Amino acid sequence: MLEINEIFNAARVLNGVARHTALVAAPQINPEADVWLKTENLQLTGSFKLRGAYYKISQLSEEEKARGVIACSAGNHAQGVALGATHNGIRALICLPAGAPISKVEATKGFGADVCLVPGVYDDAYAKACELRDKHGYTFVHPFDDEKVIAGQGTIGLEILNDMPDVEAVIVPVGGGGLISGVAFAIKTLKPDVKVYGVQSSGAASMVVSLHDGKIEHLNSVSTIADGIAVKEPGVNTFDICSKYVDEVVTVSDDETAAAMLALIERHKLVAEGAGAVSVAAAMFNKVPIKGKKVVCLVSGGNIDVTTLSRVINKGLTKSGRNYTFRIDLDDKPGQLSGVCNVIAEKGGNIISVNHERINASTSINGCIISVELETRNADHIDEIRHALDGAGYKVLN
Amino acid sequence: MLEINEIFNAARVLNGVARHTALVAAPQINPEADVWLKTENLQLTGSFKLRGAYYKISQLSEEEKARGVIACSAGNHAQGVALGATHNGIRALICLPAGAPISKVEATKGFGADVCLVPGVYDDAYAKACELRDKHGYTFVHPFDDEKVIAGQGTIGLEILNDMPDVEAVIVPVGGGGLISGVAFAIKTLKPDVKVYGVQSSGAASMVVSLHDGKIEHLNSVSTIADGIAVKEPGVNTFDICSKYVDEVVTVSDDETAAAMLALIERHKLVAEGAGAVSVAAAMFNKVPIKGKKVVCLVSGGNIDVTTLSRVINKGLTKSGRNYTFRIDLDDKPGQLSGVCNVIAEKGGNIISVNHERINASTSINGCIISVELETRNADHIDEIRHALDGAGYKVLN
Repeated sequence: MLEINEIFNAARVLNGVARHTALVAAPQINPEADVWLKTENLQLTGSFKLRGAYYKISQLSEEEKARGVIACSAGNHAQGVALGATHNGIRALICLPAGAPISKVEATKGFGADVCLVPGVYDDAYAKACELRDKHGYTFVHPFDDEKVIAGQGTIGLEILNDMPDVEAVIVPVGGGGLISGVAFAIKTLKPDVKVYGVQSSGAASMVVSLHDGKIEHLNSVSTIADGIAVKEPGVNTFDICSKYVDEVVTVSDDETAAAMLALIERHKLVAEGAGAVSVAAAMFNKVPIKGKKVVCLVSGGNIDVTTLSRVINKGLTKSGRNYTFRIDLDDKPGQLSGVCNVIAEKGGNIISVNHERINASTSINGCIISVELETRNADHIDEIRHALDGAGYKVLN
Repeated sequence: MLEINEIFNAARVLNGVARHTALVAAPQINPEADVWLKTENLQLTGSFKLRGAYYKISQLSEEEKARGVIACSAGNHAQGVALGATHNGIRALICLPAGAPISKVEATKGFGADVCLVPGVYDDAYAKACELRDKHGYTFVHPFDDEKVIAGQGTIGLEILNDMPDVEAVIVPVGGGGLISGVAFAIKTLKPDVKVYGVQSSGAASMVVSLHDGKIEHLNSVSTIADGIAVKEPGVNTFDICSKYVDEVVTVSDDETAAAMLALIERHKLVAEGAGAVSVAAAMFNKVPIKGKKVVCLVSGGNIDVTTLSRVINKGLTKSGRNYTFRIDLDDKPGQLSGVCNVIAEKGGNIISVNHERINASTSINGCIISVELETRNADHIDEIRHALDGAGYKVLN
């Protein structure tokens, strides 16, 4: 049974190991509330996971430490366990699915763990980890359903109450529920009036469904850009704690999550991964009742592949009218493209790429279709360019 | 003549207005040194400029305040002056060149300033600002060559010494020299043993050239991705202070700056603009002697257009082998593209786009060239895919 003293003890153990991350004001996320960010994306290893993993490992017996620990993860938990074990001077073995991004494998090795690449998907890696645990006597470090791990994550709740005694609501990303269990337990124990809200991706809402049904439900599949919280079912401990201490768990869409990630980059100069940004998305899109309140969004991590980040940005640019591709039906004769380019240049559009499409059923025999990709200022600017092209006699198809 | 008491006074005035930004450990920027980041990109308005502008405005006489202030800037200074004036309850007019990005115009208005869009370039906006100052008696707030402004920026030096008493070197971006003048004056006055290094873009090295020649030199043109420090000549005050107090000013290339921006995003979850990242680039690429030392890189700002950010990321992806476009000479018959796609899929490459190139002089009469853009893991992965394509009999041109 989790006790508040365990979380105080975790804070003592983590002092000097985990960073006491800053609360940063974020007035532009939702102008109707006083929004702050708890920047666990600036934590060592790039996410909060270090706290729980380190504390769990620190509390093992000398005999358990001598045998070492094992974990199964392709993400933040792997790096947390690796650094936690290294700091405690013990061996860690991390099982990852063989298809895991090289960058994550390298990061895990970089923090000092041994890595076991297992052919197949996450479930195969998990099975292998259990097999190795049984064979060698390693201690398995669960990513969320473990009291020590939950106590470690709970130290974030203590920091928030300490740094902002007048906080009224805290919004926390939810995957398996380890983070919010620790945070909600700490906050509701010490200051029951503070609201604690959870946020899941609508494509992976296992805790929402389970709380609704009053029992642990298993999702057959999950799909979300927030891969850090793509969990098929909550844990036994975390479900129990969330049932008792969390005010509400809501969902956000991938589009809302991407918009929050872009807002964090543009307005607050912070990089968050999808899982880390769902709390901000909930505040931006009024998924929880925060109007007029002092609220902390927990930005749980920032470990996002740059390739994915680039896609999120590009999607955000397109959605906000700063990138557009015109398709134009042209007579296939000299000077046509030049004319189009002139019109666009006059209106201040910046051409990034031009493609001639091959002849298809819808083009006339002497025609061709060009796709012109532009950098634009906003949706009005796109309309302005479209009208100018129309006015100059070009047949714009979109 | 600048005095240290003026900087202490500025710190007192800015207390509660400007954020005391955090020092964040950045061990991966240069493993041979103990590197920390002073995160002024997380400052209100997204850059350090608020400090100097606010302090300058706060020190005006009541009569001057009643008449209001004017400034000329398309960037961080505009937002600093706007917020500084609003906080002091006085009017600010900002002249911007008419072509300035809409986002910057909106941000400046958002902080409460009036905006005057002037046809032409920066110099035209500057001339207009001088004209309006003479006509209406506004006080002109210079972006860097002003003792009060320099004193405001110097508060960053106090914060660094306060938060890290054992710092050995500080690396500071240099445009007109206002920031480094304040920081160097504060640090060298209080702790002369601490080294202070400046960094300019190699495409806008006006301070470097001026210090070398022992007099203020004017560059006819500047070109750099770090637009925040693209300044054609240093100020009279800043040149004088830099001559006396700065240990060395070095340069970094645009590629080095972009690499530093990408490292800040990937490893430290922080968004910096080009000007803000040159200090980090200098540390990454050993432009200054920091081996074995405890060093603070001042990340001066994070106001970067997402479009530019997207370009920096894409360039970084290409440079680090995570994006590649193969050009392949194919027989123009059914099944060819499908074969290429299969080979790539087997090797774990992820196809983003495919383009057929129009027939050109170098293709055979029955051939065509396709460009296949891929997401890849690294340079070795690209080689692996190339060999697989070769092995399957495809003619890879690059």
